[in-house]
Amino acid sequence: MSDTLKHKINRQEVIDNALDYTIMSWSKQKGIDPFAIERAEGVYLYDYSGQKIIDFSSGLMNSNIGYGDQRVTAAVVKQMQEVAFISPSCVSKVRGDLGKKLAEICPGDLNRAFFTVCGATSNENAIKLARLYTGRHKIFTRYQSYHGATIGAISAGGDPRKIPVDAQQAPNFVHFDLPNAYRYEYGEENLLKDSVASLERQIEYEGPNTIAAILLEGESGTSGCLQYPNGYLKKVREICNKHGILLIMDEVMSGFGRTGKWFGFQNHDIIPDMIVMAKGLTCGYLPLGCVMISEKIASKYDDNVLPLGLTYSAHAVSCAAAMEVIRIYEEDNLIERAAEMGKYLESRIEDMKKIHPSIGDFRNTGLLGCLELVKNRETKEPMAPFNAKPDQMEVMNKVAAKIKGLGMYTFVRWGYIFIAPPLIITKEEMEEGLAIISEALKIADEATY
Amino acid sequence: MSDTLKHKINRQEVIDNALDYTIMSWSKQKGIDPFAIERAEGVYLYDYSGQKIIDFSSGLMNSNIGYGDQRVTAAVVKQMQEVAFISPSCVSKVRGDLGKKLAEICPGDLNRAFFTVCGATSNENAIKLARLYTGRHKIFTRYQSYHGATIGAISAGGDPRKIPVDAQQAPNFVHFDLPNAYRYEYGEENLLKDSVASLERQIEYEGPNTIAAILLEGESGTSGCLQYPNGYLKKVREICNKHGILLIMDEVMSGFGRTGKWFGFQNHDIIPDMIVMAKGLTCGYLPLGCVMISEKIASKYDDNVLPLGLTYSAHAVSCAAAMEVIRIYEEDNLIERAAEMGKYLESRIEDMKKIHPSIGDFRNTGLLGCLELVKNRETKEPMAPFNAKPDQMEVMNKVAAKIKGLGMYTFVRWGYIFIAPPLIITKEEMEEGLAIISEALKIADEATY
Ligand SMILES: Cc1ncc(COP(=O)(O)O)c(C=O)c1O
Ligand SMILES: Cc1ncc(COP(=O)(O)O)c(C=O)c1O
Repeated sequence: MSDTLKHKINRQEVIDNALDYTIMSWSKQKGIDPFAIERAEGVYLYDYSGQKIIDFSSGLMNSNIGYGDQRVTAAVVKQMQEVAFISPSCVSKVRGDLGKKLAEICPGDLNRAFFTVCGATSNENAIKLARLYTGRHKIFTRYQSYHGATIGAISAGGDPRKIPVDAQQAPNFVHFDLPNAYRYEYGEENLLKDSVASLERQIEYEGPNTIAAILLEGESGTSGCLQYPNGYLKKVREICNKHGILLIMDEVMSGFGRTGKWFGFQNHDIIPDMIVMAKGLTCGYLPLGCVMISEKIASKYDDNVLPLGLTYSAHAVSCAAAMEVIRIYEEDNLIERAAEMGKYLESRIEDMKKIHPSIGDFRNTGLLGCLELVKNRETKEPMAPFNAKPDQMEVMNKVAAKIKGLGMYTFVRWGYIFIAPPLIITKEEMEEGLAIISEALKIADEATY
Repeated sequence: MSDTLKHKINRQEVIDNALDYTIMSWSKQKGIDPFAIERAEGVYLYDYSGQKIIDFSSGLMNSNIGYGDQRVTAAVVKQMQEVAFISPSCVSKVRGDLGKKLAEICPGDLNRAFFTVCGATSNENAIKLARLYTGRHKIFTRYQSYHGATIGAISAGGDPRKIPVDAQQAPNFVHFDLPNAYRYEYGEENLLKDSVASLERQIEYEGPNTIAAILLEGESGTSGCLQYPNGYLKKVREICNKHGILLIMDEVMSGFGRTGKWFGFQNHDIIPDMIVMAKGLTCGYLPLGCVMISEKIASKYDDNVLPLGLTYSAHAVSCAAAMEVIRIYEEDNLIERAAEMGKYLESRIEDMKKIHPSIGDFRNTGLLGCLELVKNRETKEPMAPFNAKPDQMEVMNKVAAKIKGLGMYTFVRWGYIFIAPPLIITKEEMEEGLAIISEALKIADEATY
């Protein structure tokens, strides 16, 4: 059998088994044509077909150090030779080591780690703890946000992924709207003032004493990198202080260098009361989540039972993977690198804007970036609207298919194309990726008027 | 420095770091004196102090194949050299392989795996899917059950761990009570009849057409192995069929050989519509959960978007660990072994009952077992009541301290001592553990009247 043929058979079997015996998330099960990945290295995925695919959204914006780094494998093996799993009522060395390392990285008195398994379970625990600690019931969150898919986390988020399960919502989540700077009509000078006033009004309507926490993404992610008005988070911090409301920053997507800082909120000169982590904490090498908790909150549980827990809390192997991943961020200067490459990306998008009339807006912090495509720059009519229906996706589906066909994996949603490659990306790799996007944008350009 | 001294210093640092920089679940943070585990092998944990500890509850009833099995490490390394993480919209080979293997193990048309990260996230997804599929909102569950700690899962469970976060409950979970055979006053012949009649009445009160699913543990776990009346689950299956209610079995604790079968429900001759898995699926080597879904349910999503997802769905390394763990169950005949050792355990407890008046009841299926201690066999007055307050735990705390002091780790709760060792346990190891429990029971015996 020829090698190509063998590959082809293998590939079909890999896909058939996945589709016949497993269920794919967020999609119909029929008519899916997924990449079948044989191996992954750096910023590239390799399909069983032999195709080399550049990953411009770092998996789900989590493979920050890139794929296939065998330093992590070595750390994992070492840990598995000592202790893999023990009950979370016992302690392993790596548990405390990782807690200590995270306390070093986190500002202020955010010194206590509660380890979970993913982003959703981290948010769930942060929410539970905020309510327990304050004795209040409401959680304020932003419509344009996603916090995970468990019943608590999906109720917290405002993303339309929640709409099909709307009837299942958990109570006492209050959502607020934040103007999108690109489409705001009253001038930059009014944006901050209006955004803050609107939040303050809503807090008064709801009753400040009923609000346990405001939960926000460190920087906006899958909603389209819809950034906070300048100075907004500082005002939110002040409002929280005034009313005894906790501020929880969800750094699942924006944390660990993605925005050119350890955490997204560090671009806004604030310190939250809890930090929710996952994704970049282990870069996906193994599942792990964490809530970093301030000493002030944690100390309440010195003499009170903390009613939180899960089987895999502080999983030793996942903790070991995180320790090594954090070492790699530091050793390879990936946080600084993300800031630099972010700047480079910004300048290159400026160039692209000149030749692609379909680029309406580009929003990014470091390497968490998003192109918003429009039919017309004057009217800003979107290439596809928020929560677009299938028949509104005609052009964007073609753009997405082109991107895929040219050997790129990235997150395309409504009129958005996300650009969030691994932080290790080189200029050459960035150029390679941008050339693919540029090629696909020709399709969108044709749909402009 | 002497070796002992080095160990001691090391140990204190391990504990201090864990307590200073992390948060321990389900407990006060002060005054904790945890085991500090340096390595683990077979049924034993080794503390940094040099102490060898026999684990009689398999971690959290999940280390079914025992600790330190390096065959799993080898499988993990191999996978990490190929693909560790890829976005769940792409497919890896191991994803389909594991789905296929699970479909083989599961009865009926339970052929489609939705992979999650733990028990709670599996239950959350099963609940969401049941409501979506049926278009109904209520989930029926048993008071004496635990399904995890995320907002949905903890609302589903009836365990008192939910009471401190009661105000945070998600709606539309309905709990029902099931008599405890040991304390039931009207004779074995009425137990089944009354249990079924009571459930049927409650279903009528709530309205059968409002009920999406009945969610039950495959065999009762942390509530005290409070077993289903003989024939009960068959009746529940019939009731579900009659009303179009789905039956979801939570096999997180009772699955994967724990009860002497692959799944707990296989002791009851039924087939559910979904199986919720975690724990024994990977034996804790890495975090993984799964919902096995019937073809009937899955096929609805051929042409409808399945609105479920999470970043680490079908994590390739976790899937590879599960593949190897399942291979080990089969190669080492651990399912049969659990059944045999369960029988052996039962006969040995019979012997112990003769010398320990404090043993009121022993309930087990295979190696999922629980001793219930009483102050008096006639009155059945419990040694500590359900959800015992600290001042009601005086005797049991002494029993627990003795067990720990003698070098055993196991789950002691209220008046219960759990006996759920790894399935690989030998008769000699079982004797060693039972001797420790026997020694500790002397304290309880003294408190009998
Ligand atoms: C900001 C944010 N929070 C939470 C989550 C949920 O994380 P997970 O999928 O690990 O539950 C995501 C996932 O995309 C996210 O972007
Ligand atoms: C029956 C059952 N379901 C679910 C869970 C929750 O699993 P996890 O802690 O992995 O979320 C447990 C944990 O003990 C359990 O015993």
